[in-house]
Amino acid sequence: MDIRELFGIEHAVIQAPMAGVQGSALAVAVSNAGGLGSLPCAMLNTETLRGELEAIRSGTDKPFNVNFFCHTPPEPDPEREAAWHRTLDPYYAEIGQDPRNVPAGAGRAPFSAEAADVLEEFRPPVVSFHFGLPSPELLARVRRWGARVLSSATTVDEALWLEAKGVDAIIAQGLEAGGHRGMFLSSDLSTQVGTLALLPQIVDAVRVPVIAAGGIADAAGVTAARALGAAGVQVGTAYLLCPEATTSEVHRTALQSGAARHTALTNIFSGRPARGIVNRIIREIGPICPTAPAFPLATGAIGPLRAAAEQRGNGDFSPLWAGQNVSGCRQVPADELTRSLASEW
Amino acid sequence: MDIRELFGIEHAVIQAPMAGVQGSALAVAVSNAGGLGSLPCAMLNTETLRGELEAIRSGTDKPFNVNFFCHTPPEPDPEREAAWHRTLDPYYAEIGQDPRNVPAGAGRAPFSAEAADVLEEFRPPVVSFHFGLPSPELLARVRRWGARVLSSATTVDEALWLEAKGVDAIIAQGLEAGGHRGMFLSSDLSTQVGTLALLPQIVDAVRVPVIAAGGIADAAGVTAARALGAAGVQVGTAYLLCPEATTSEVHRTALQSGAARHTALTNIFSGRPARGIVNRIIREIGPICPTAPAFPLATGAIGPLRAAAEQRGNGDFSPLWAGQNVSGCRQVPADELTRSLASEW
Repeated sequence: MDIRELFGIEHAVIQAPMAGVQGSALAVAVSNAGGLGSLPCAMLNTETLRGELEAIRSGTDKPFNVNFFCHTPPEPDPEREAAWHRTLDPYYAEIGQDPRNVPAGAGRAPFSAEAADVLEEFRPPVVSFHFGLPSPELLARVRRWGARVLSSATTVDEALWLEAKGVDAIIAQGLEAGGHRGMFLSSDLSTQVGTLALLPQIVDAVRVPVIAAGGIADAAGVTAARALGAAGVQVGTAYLLCPEATTSEVHRTALQSGAARHTALTNIFSGRPARGIVNRIIREIGPICPTAPAFPLATGAIGPLRAAAEQRGNGDFSPLWAGQNVSGCRQVPADELTRSLASEW
Repeated sequence: MDIRELFGIEHAVIQAPMAGVQGSALAVAVSNAGGLGSLPCAMLNTETLRGELEAIRSGTDKPFNVNFFCHTPPEPDPEREAAWHRTLDPYYAEIGQDPRNVPAGAGRAPFSAEAADVLEEFRPPVVSFHFGLPSPELLARVRRWGARVLSSATTVDEALWLEAKGVDAIIAQGLEAGGHRGMFLSSDLSTQVGTLALLPQIVDAVRVPVIAAGGIADAAGVTAARALGAAGVQVGTAYLLCPEATTSEVHRTALQSGAARHTALTNIFSGRPARGIVNRIIREIGPICPTAPAFPLATGAIGPLRAAAEQRGNGDFSPLWAGQNVSGCRQVPADELTRSLASEW
């Protein structure tokens, strides 16, 4: 089934939820253009979540998607935190601070009963999850208002798992994708598969619609995904330069530079592997750093380094999320980009 | 330019050269079917090379490709060899042998003047290289009989480098591909890109025809590659079960098992990263083992372990080369597979 029918949208294009670089404005623009706009909620508290949902409801009467992480929060591990601080010590010395004074903020919260309370007021027509699915009880609450449920699979095994749990569609997240890998049945990065190989194998393995994600930058990429059996596409990176995105200046600059040709999966910004442009901190302690605390506990201690650098217009310590194909990044309104992506479906 | 025109072939399908699992028989079958059959020469001495070229010339009058590696042979490093032997000691103990008694055979030789002497007798119409290109002198010899020259790029930078050296076409080898990564400007695995992202970026960057490789398993994959601007495709893994391939029994069994869903880039079989099905030795000392000697010096010491295991019908120590999409592997003659791959071009 085409996702246009499943979600009641005009174009088979989902704007990938991208926590930290966009809010309701991008989602509204994409939904109004006939795609499926997405609101990333992992970094929103309930108050901000309500505000963003109000903004979407007042900005569009079209279907939209809200996205949540559903990891199990880890137990704090003081030894590992201490090792992480030692790793970061030289950088803190550069900015004249002490990492031990940084509050260990989690940064990202999993889907919760409190979030479901807020959602119930707005009944978003599509809810997508990353890192598997929430508890059956929480999922049942989402189902109760008729929401379509999506999640990402990075392997055939994960796709089969999601189908068995009753999702309405599966996002096949190829290795090229920017941001966090949705992997949840294994933490072994060698299990991760390129989109061109992953997509047709998931399409063969499941009966629900499969949405292609990872490396799709333009209408030709959409055509390729369709040839491989995709019911639609999810595109993130290409939207990063749109005026509706809140992408930082250092991030926008990096995306338009030669540096964007080299991305890596790194765990140093959150504790879980996510793809971003290789910068100084990735080069020096990553891309995979064994002392990084479990997700999302690695997030806090990078913050002050990032803030100090960005004040100087420097992205050496910023998570510069991007996929392996930034060729579709254009400084155009999101509605124009959405229609362009959908132009050959 | 379509590679059909460039190489004088009927179908825009190159059978990927796969050292160790095929010889002239597969190349002849593919060329006779209208594709471009390839002879992998990295593991052939001049006598065997001549014999294989005679077999191709007597088997087909169609164009064919010969493939060579062009690495710089490393200096032997006794300390590293010793560390490697220590890594393998427990496995040698299992088979009652001593790794120090194994002759350190290189296993794979780079393109040489001696090989060029043999080629001159046969004037193969296409010569492809892996790991860059040979010296200008050797390349000039190949050019002298009018051969078309190909090489693999795993990044945009490598594609630009190859174009500057005057290759006739570039193989964009995506991360999904089985066997050795053709990477030659960097040894950093994080630079490696999935086919869906790599292909269109190389197509944009160069003016020569670009051939897509990695994860293409069937006609739909070919269609996807074409949508992304490919002038043709190179397919390896899908041919591994053909009767004309010399794929071992343990390898054939693994390709048809669930194990084939998990491949990894590993350096333990040769010293350079190559993609194969994860088996016991990869799981236990790999996929990337820091003590593995430089390419191709890691090859020798795995040999006896592999031989002993294969005698018992066991692939625990075998390089089970495969890409990330084995769904196209079928036990059908190579001409049927070639026509099937080309059916929607």
